[in-house]
Amino acid sequence: MTHIPEDHPRYASLITREKIVEGVQVGITSQQGLVAQGRGEAFDYLIGERTIESAVIAERVAVAYLLTAERPVISINGNTAALVPGSLVSLADVSEAEMEVNLFHRSDARVHRIIEHLKAHGAGNVLGAKGDARLDLSHDRAIVDQEGIYGADVVLVPLEDGDRCQKLVEMGKVVIAVDLNPLSRTSLSATVTIVDNVTRALENMVYFTKEMKKDNKEQLRGIIDSYDNRKVLADAMYAIQENLKNQAAREGIEWI
Amino acid sequence: MTHIPEDHPRYASLITREKIVEGVQVGITSQQGLVAQGRGEAFDYLIGERTIESAVIAERVAVAYLLTAERPVISINGNTAALVPGSLVSLADVSEAEMEVNLFHRSDARVHRIIEHLKAHGAGNVLGAKGDARLDLSHDRAIVDQEGIYGADVVLVPLEDGDRCQKLVEMGKVVIAVDLNPLSRTSLSATVTIVDNVTRALENMVYFTKEMKKDNKEQLRGIIDSYDNRKVLADAMYAIQENLKNQAAREGIEWI
Repeated sequence: MTHIPEDHPRYASLITREKIVEGVQVGITSQQGLVAQGRGEAFDYLIGERTIESAVIAERVAVAYLLTAERPVISINGNTAALVPGSLVSLADVSEAEMEVNLFHRSDARVHRIIEHLKAHGAGNVLGAKGDARLDLSHDRAIVDQEGIYGADVVLVPLEDGDRCQKLVEMGKVVIAVDLNPLSRTSLSATVTIVDNVTRALENMVYFTKEMKKDNKEQLRGIIDSYDNRKVLADAMYAIQENLKNQAAREGIEWI
Repeated sequence: MTHIPEDHPRYASLITREKIVEGVQVGITSQQGLVAQGRGEAFDYLIGERTIESAVIAERVAVAYLLTAERPVISINGNTAALVPGSLVSLADVSEAEMEVNLFHRSDARVHRIIEHLKAHGAGNVLGAKGDARLDLSHDRAIVDQEGIYGADVVLVPLEDGDRCQKLVEMGKVVIAVDLNPLSRTSLSATVTIVDNVTRALENMVYFTKEMKKDNKEQLRGIIDSYDNRKVLADAMYAIQENLKNQAAREGIEWI
């Protein structure tokens, strides 16, 4: 890994990028995953590289869904496996969710490498190698496990394709997405959209799960019932706008 | 190259991405270049994947600078070489500018591969292999040619590092940057900031150069003198804001 000094103003962002490049080098992340990482960086910059207030609300609702689910599953791709393997394992552990590897650029070798990578970070069982069920999609993210995503009632899909998100929602599942673009197809179609960097989002969700495990089902359902995903998206747009306005002001660029 | 149907709503963007991935495969573009491409995609999406009006103004001023320069140089990195080799060669040709390869992740092999790639697209002389002068920077973009960037009065730097841009400006050079983020260090420090996708920007500049070559020096200087880069940056911010507002409205997301 390239050495990055800890006092660098964009330390967290640069470390994240290095992790993704390493992911490509060890065959976990695809080259297209690097482009996706860049898009994420830009949107994270737009919201100010911090967890905005409405994202905290969405993260708590997501946890409430995971804790009240019958069969919660966390879907894992090459980018999340490279970026947040430890948080994924922790979240699956505390929320008692299954983990399933699901890839756009799928190969058996890559699925197995990711499963091994997660196990090296403490994962027990990881689904995704079987691929004994299909979603109605024309690409490889269609391939899922019967006992995993296919049969799940709640699916957490950090870093998602828009069409798979829509398909899972059409199948009647609760879909929790982590997506930094509040206007993407994924963000617009998910049940709960967490507009936050996946690194921060997963860490927060582990923390909230530990805390909210003490709540009873009624309390958790109350949190879910009062939630409005459109409001969260509107708030994220507002955060982007305010952040740009403040940055422009700092740089002496007129805000028309 | 992956087949992408021409009627795909994001055809241009996807073709561009494939070109960059190919660039990595043939050893022209770095893996970090893929991340940079992703950032560019996000910002291009924000301005609506079109050339905004103020970018046209900046492109014309950039051409006026190139046409009135004593020693204009076009700096070329791995991403621009992969994306727009033909336009770079055409622009150097019509504006009588030198081309120089200048890389952040520099190796002699990569410099030579890019030079060969440009020659395969019709380039005559391409500088950058000599590296007999240095800018005061701590990374490899410091390495330049004496008869190229070092001695230039006007430098076109599509897709630039902020610190090199600042350094060239400090050296008294006119710096023309192509950068889709109007608030980046590059955008804020360049003499002329073209907030446009490099693919569209270069094509436009070739067109404008052919047209403006007929103008006399006075006319060209008039175009330069009436230019205000801060206004162009303010306009780009406005375009982003309006585009997001319109998209939010289309999707029924409240604009707070």
